[in-house]
Amino acid sequence: MRAEIIFIGTELLLGQIVNSNAVFLGQELISLGIDCYFQTIVGDNKDRIKEAFEIAIKRSDLIITTGGLGPTSDDLTTECLAEFFGEELVLDEKILQHIQNLFDKYNKKMAESNKKQALRPKSANILFNSAGTAPGIIWQKTFNEKQKIILTFPGVPTEVKIMWGEIAKPFLIDFLQSQNKNSEKLYFKELKFYGIGESDLAEKVQDLLDQNDPTTAPLAGQDECRLRIATKAINEEIANQKISEVESIIQKRVGQFIYGINQETLESVLIEKLKYKKQTIALAESCTGGLISKRLTDIPGSSVCIGLNIITYSNESKISLLKVKPQTLNEFGAVSEQTVLEMSAGIINLAKSDWALAVSGVAGPTGKPIGEIFLALINADNSFQEVKKLQLGNRSRKEIRWKTSQEALAWILKTI
Amino acid sequence: MRAEIIFIGTELLLGQIVNSNAVFLGQELISLGIDCYFQTIVGDNKDRIKEAFEIAIKRSDLIITTGGLGPTSDDLTTECLAEFFGEELVLDEKILQHIQNLFDKYNKKMAESNKKQALRPKSANILFNSAGTAPGIIWQKTFNEKQKIILTFPGVPTEVKIMWGEIAKPFLIDFLQSQNKNSEKLYFKELKFYGIGESDLAEKVQDLLDQNDPTTAPLAGQDECRLRIATKAINEEIANQKISEVESIIQKRVGQFIYGINQETLESVLIEKLKYKKQTIALAESCTGGLISKRLTDIPGSSVCIGLNIITYSNESKISLLKVKPQTLNEFGAVSEQTVLEMSAGIINLAKSDWALAVSGVAGPTGKPIGEIFLALINADNSFQEVKKLQLGNRSRKEIRWKTSQEALAWILKTI
Repeated sequence: MRAEIIFIGTELLLGQIVNSNAVFLGQELISLGIDCYFQTIVGDNKDRIKEAFEIAIKRSDLIITTGGLGPTSDDLTTECLAEFFGEELVLDEKILQHIQNLFDKYNKKMAESNKKQALRPKSANILFNSAGTAPGIIWQKTFNEKQKIILTFPGVPTEVKIMWGEIAKPFLIDFLQSQNKNSEKLYFKELKFYGIGESDLAEKVQDLLDQNDPTTAPLAGQDECRLRIATKAINEEIANQKISEVESIIQKRVGQFIYGINQETLESVLIEKLKYKKQTIALAESCTGGLISKRLTDIPGSSVCIGLNIITYSNESKISLLKVKPQTLNEFGAVSEQTVLEMSAGIINLAKSDWALAVSGVAGPTGKPIGEIFLALINADNSFQEVKKLQLGNRSRKEIRWKTSQEALAWILKTI
Repeated sequence: MRAEIIFIGTELLLGQIVNSNAVFLGQELISLGIDCYFQTIVGDNKDRIKEAFEIAIKRSDLIITTGGLGPTSDDLTTECLAEFFGEELVLDEKILQHIQNLFDKYNKKMAESNKKQALRPKSANILFNSAGTAPGIIWQKTFNEKQKIILTFPGVPTEVKIMWGEIAKPFLIDFLQSQNKNSEKLYFKELKFYGIGESDLAEKVQDLLDQNDPTTAPLAGQDECRLRIATKAINEEIANQKISEVESIIQKRVGQFIYGINQETLESVLIEKLKYKKQTIALAESCTGGLISKRLTDIPGSSVCIGLNIITYSNESKISLLKVKPQTLNEFGAVSEQTVLEMSAGIINLAKSDWALAVSGVAGPTGKPIGEIFLALINADNSFQEVKKLQLGNRSRKEIRWKTSQEALAWILKTI
């Protein structure tokens, strides 16, 4: 089964929002073994929505749309689909009641425009939206003598996720089973690297990149890179067997740079490791302003390894709270080896943690030298005590802060 | 001039990365007054890349591609374009030298595969990449008796930005000027709202949404919504005049919910306001783990309003550092009105700030009741001291933390 996604919304074309639905739906389709070869983004314009739809339905069996289901006049998806197939729109009383109930619940008057959201093409079923007023449709339709499935979703990512999980996914699983084909699914595993560049990595595994089954593809990310090993197989066991053969070759050659797999992140792997070792860490952040703390506490269950982090943005707070000596700040400055070492000693004293990391630097866009960062990592009995200096000039504030957090997490992970 | 973007890369279809190039290029095209009606995402497959390209070149004048310019065998963009136009590939000696120099600089041996990156279709020019080894092309080509421009970029967002700014943008500006048409550009202004839902907002400005020039379109975001007022005009002054008429109507009706415009965020507006009032704020975060601090310090120059923030994730650190009473924690729990009030008193004492916000809650996925959050906001002389309770159940950990940070920032902004 070939799927194709049409993302509808002028705001996507104008670059006003990130298309996070693309990430979610892309991953979900793969997990069902459904190939998706094209995605199209089109604005809130009738002719162009229909044009995108016409191209898609000719080459794909499953068309998924997001966006254009709201109550306003530039929400055109349902209308366009009905017109494309020459079918009339009917008012779905059950959905109208659902929308009415939502308004009643919040003691609000339903706008006349919301009625539009209860319309569906006559032969389509409703794809119920338990999270909002905009339902989608599930439509099985014959086109050019082939059976096609059309699913429409609103644009709001949380609603897409709920509707997918509650209705669309079970529907597709049923459909695929009813086809009863002993069909192959795509399986893949991603290896995540830190500390090696993309072309360096590619060179080390060039023979695997040239190989057809499993395929190995390099992916560049923000300050890290990945290798995706993929294969088609009729079940997971066979796939895993093929993938692990390739993985072990990669492990042998560049295993020291691999920090995790698939959805793992530096922070998730670090929290796992701390949990496993029953150790704690505390942070004293200056230029990163809480970013490292935020990333670590993004991870569920991180509270067993983290008790206290402090953001000492000012010199005064470095002195009063972390007991950095005023003469250290005077003599060497806030961005120095000496200061981060004293910061790390200060935070480990306060937090009574097993490890402490301190960071101070110039994130820009003002201040000099931009991108100069010092990190200190120490442990409770002072048997480990190191300072690292980064030069991240020529980057934006956002990039400098991000890269600093990457370096910090990778360093802690490697050390503990 | 009509543009169309083709994003090439299987990782995009699989949902392995967020397409941040779409945001950047979308905004840049608009700023040049170039309409972009379609974007297509296609995998690393020759036939499908050519198919996407064929559709695009028939309906658009400017085709921009990202991705597929690396050294590996699944980097196919240049090859596909050359084949599509039946033109041979030639080795660009200057680019080969540039790539060689990059490898020399880092004392590395150039891989044979990197030579591929120096290939270009014979009649195309190189779009130089000063940030990496993968150059793109600038190709002016006649197709169906119409002049077309093709620009190719690598997939790495930082390289796209640099190549766009250094070469592609100046080239397009020159080209547009050489066309010397007194052409209209699209101008727009976005109003950003917090504290009002999308359909509520739409209802209040329905007449404007139905209007054609300027157009007003509602955009739903993550826990906030926006209205985009857009018009085409031959210069900025005329556009501003038209836009501000609509804006003043919106201001009159729902002005109390507007917190900013265009690229402004709750955090940027809050920092501006603190700066203007020469006031400081300090945070004591528990469940948000540094997220609010991170958001505020994302803003350049935030250091004048922020000296110290503390993440007290554990009860011990709430007691030892913020002087929350053990009996308060015992009697009412860490997630309570009493605890956040004592936290806020503790942090304002340590930071000597004008304002302090404390937050404690259950972000999930474990713990109960998930989504119950308490916030306290106080000022230095205790003339302001309030607690707010949120019930954010039925959301993910990430969503609960984000929504809490939104509520916190909006509350501070409104209060100070």
